[in-house]
Amino acid sequence: MTPPPHVPQSTRPLRIGIAGLGTVGSGVVRLLDENAALIARRAGRAIEVTAVAARDATRDRGINLGAVRWHRDAVALANDPDVDAVVEVIGGADGVALELAQASLAAGKPFVTANKAMIAAHGMALAARAEAADIALKFEAAVAGGIPVIKALREGASANRIERVYGILNGTCNFILTAMESRALSFDAALAEAQALGYAEADPGFDIDGVDASHKLAILAAICFSARTDVAGVTVEGIRAISAEDIKEADALGYRIRLIAMAEMQNGALLQYVRPCLVAAEHPLGYVPGCLNAVVAEGNFVGRLFLEGAGAGDGPTASAVVADIIDVARDEYGPAFTMAVGALDALPRADVGHVVGKSYIRLHVADRTGVLAEIAIAMRDAGVSVESLIQRGGTGGEALIVLVTHASDAAAVDGALDTLAQGDALVAPPLRLPILAL
Amino acid sequence: MTPPPHVPQSTRPLRIGIAGLGTVGSGVVRLLDENAALIARRAGRAIEVTAVAARDATRDRGINLGAVRWHRDAVALANDPDVDAVVEVIGGADGVALELAQASLAAGKPFVTANKAMIAAHGMALAARAEAADIALKFEAAVAGGIPVIKALREGASANRIERVYGILNGTCNFILTAMESRALSFDAALAEAQALGYAEADPGFDIDGVDASHKLAILAAICFSARTDVAGVTVEGIRAISAEDIKEADALGYRIRLIAMAEMQNGALLQYVRPCLVAAEHPLGYVPGCLNAVVAEGNFVGRLFLEGAGAGDGPTASAVVADIIDVARDEYGPAFTMAVGALDALPRADVGHVVGKSYIRLHVADRTGVLAEIAIAMRDAGVSVESLIQRGGTGGEALIVLVTHASDAAAVDGALDTLAQGDALVAPPLRLPILAL
Repeated sequence: MTPPPHVPQSTRPLRIGIAGLGTVGSGVVRLLDENAALIARRAGRAIEVTAVAARDATRDRGINLGAVRWHRDAVALANDPDVDAVVEVIGGADGVALELAQASLAAGKPFVTANKAMIAAHGMALAARAEAADIALKFEAAVAGGIPVIKALREGASANRIERVYGILNGTCNFILTAMESRALSFDAALAEAQALGYAEADPGFDIDGVDASHKLAILAAICFSARTDVAGVTVEGIRAISAEDIKEADALGYRIRLIAMAEMQNGALLQYVRPCLVAAEHPLGYVPGCLNAVVAEGNFVGRLFLEGAGAGDGPTASAVVADIIDVARDEYGPAFTMAVGALDALPRADVGHVVGKSYIRLHVADRTGVLAEIAIAMRDAGVSVESLIQRGGTGGEALIVLVTHASDAAAVDGALDTLAQGDALVAPPLRLPILAL
Repeated sequence: MTPPPHVPQSTRPLRIGIAGLGTVGSGVVRLLDENAALIARRAGRAIEVTAVAARDATRDRGINLGAVRWHRDAVALANDPDVDAVVEVIGGADGVALELAQASLAAGKPFVTANKAMIAAHGMALAARAEAADIALKFEAAVAGGIPVIKALREGASANRIERVYGILNGTCNFILTAMESRALSFDAALAEAQALGYAEADPGFDIDGVDASHKLAILAAICFSARTDVAGVTVEGIRAISAEDIKEADALGYRIRLIAMAEMQNGALLQYVRPCLVAAEHPLGYVPGCLNAVVAEGNFVGRLFLEGAGAGDGPTASAVVADIIDVARDEYGPAFTMAVGALDALPRADVGHVVGKSYIRLHVADRTGVLAEIAIAMRDAGVSVESLIQRGGTGGEALIVLVTHASDAAAVDGALDTLAQGDALVAPPLRLPILAL
């Protein structure tokens, strides 16, 4: 038997089973239907949905599922003889999704998923299983929705040592921050609007506390640094503390506030954090509007790559899921994380507490003699040099002080703020946001 | 014999022959050397340069070519028994580059090239040969330099019907236009600066007349629309007619002037043009600074994707070339143009003369009674509706009139301008620039 040629010759369709028929699952079915002819040309063979798994078979999803076999138990898809490859869009790090992934790989069936929580938590184990069975494990849709960021960085930038990769990986947060920015909304008003528009859940913590972005970042970092995923190593801080005042002050300084997911190599150790940062207004991330996602990767030969697009939604997510399916149909895929799991580096964690860089600091202080001196002394004693400072008189005996430090050790700045918080100069907890170096 | 597994197991290096040791060729050698260990992990095997072809073996290129075999005749690389795959960075649509491509494919050797002129002109014939021999033909570096736009659109957006793809594909022109914009330079001054910095050749026509961008566009269109390349079908107009005045007037209207390469499906026909256009200041292309390239693709499920990065230079171009080599080493590649050449559509050409859209028109007119009426009447008689008009008094009996039309048939607007040009109202040829619809 000779190896298959690289121009697909197969006339046998690839038969897909889809687990989960929510927004994304329905989108995948609709995409495969609407673009069927084009996809068959590009994949070299037809792609057919032969089975689905969802709890409620009676609900009208506006898609045609006439000839498709229904399973109530998603795991049964793995053993359906009419399913060649399994697509999982149920979600959740464990439970049914994980069982289905394990069962599919055990049954020798390629597995395509949009499940960032599962890949961040169990990607290494699943990739090892896929590798042992020599079948595809694909998860383009798990990071940055419709933007083919895994493809572009895993394969398109494969010649580069990536120095750092970072971006806006949560559209809900970006919607909130840009709404606060462009229309001077309060955080609460912007969040309420995001919820009303369906961009944020009733319980928004998964998005606005940075958890969702941390899962995506861990996957992206593994791809870019040829490293084992380490989602527990991501320092996470959400956007709840950001006020309209911060947005305004940052703007006056020439910055935008964005929830930045950052992975960076520092002396052989991996720094990973998700936290609100100031980015220069002229940085590409400063222009990313509304719900969009964007990723910047800096390679030692390619320089800076910037990719922007829809990070969520049924259409964009289905686009990424089906791109993976087409790769499977074409038999064009390699190891899930660019190389054998055993060859990936287990990188030590960089000390996020001692990152060196400029900081934005916002203080609400008592409007009395000597407060400015207390702040200046605390900074001086911590060895922190101040680049700029603005004091604005407030109401009710309070004033606002906004300062920007020169590049300093984060721990030193936090130490100075702790010192201040122990005195009576501050009337509210201080806020420190890193300023992203360009 | 069983097919090879998808996790590369080969310990045999992939041996590369490089034709051309100018900036890009030297960059490829340096990249393969500097990132050798990482590339070997990602490719699953070492990639070694075993032979090169260049006219002058004595020139110091700052790269280590100690153990490498030298050929004076590039075509000899195809038959060097120590070369598994050939990289061509000589350039030129025909001549040695084309001979080498043909000889490599005839010898059954994968062929990687950065040669946009050759792929635009001969891509179909070369792809058919590669397909018949079941070997790789790759040209990521031919479009948008280091941005992995072929990879991202061919594979990452493969599930989508692309509605249009467009962007900034010539960094030299973007440098000139953005220098005129940010520093109010004249066209000649900006061109001279580009030449002094090495961004433009002594004979700059290939860049500033839009030829280079037209080659890239023809390749991009073929990839996105699953169509045969049609470089002769690209309407091309360069940036020589753009004045500092146009940049300023466009800015006042909320637009930037960019050399736009556009490919769009219009009722089953393919519209392709390269020409200066106005883009809204808030459009992502409006922010692309200096020498960068950027591509926008609009898919029917993914929505708008935006990719930006370095479009030229040795590092970025080498990054794209080596990404292709890694795909070859991994045995992860498919048909050069996403499907068998015989399956590609031969699309009819859309009539670029009748594109409907807004236009920017700049007129230098005689400053006398009745001129404004003549212009208004010419527009009215051609059925062109005017959205806005500014007249500015000039010196020497001349005035400047800038007008923006409502969406109109391009031929109607051009007809009105022809009518005016036949009278004596205009003291210089009129300029019409399309305004890009968002």
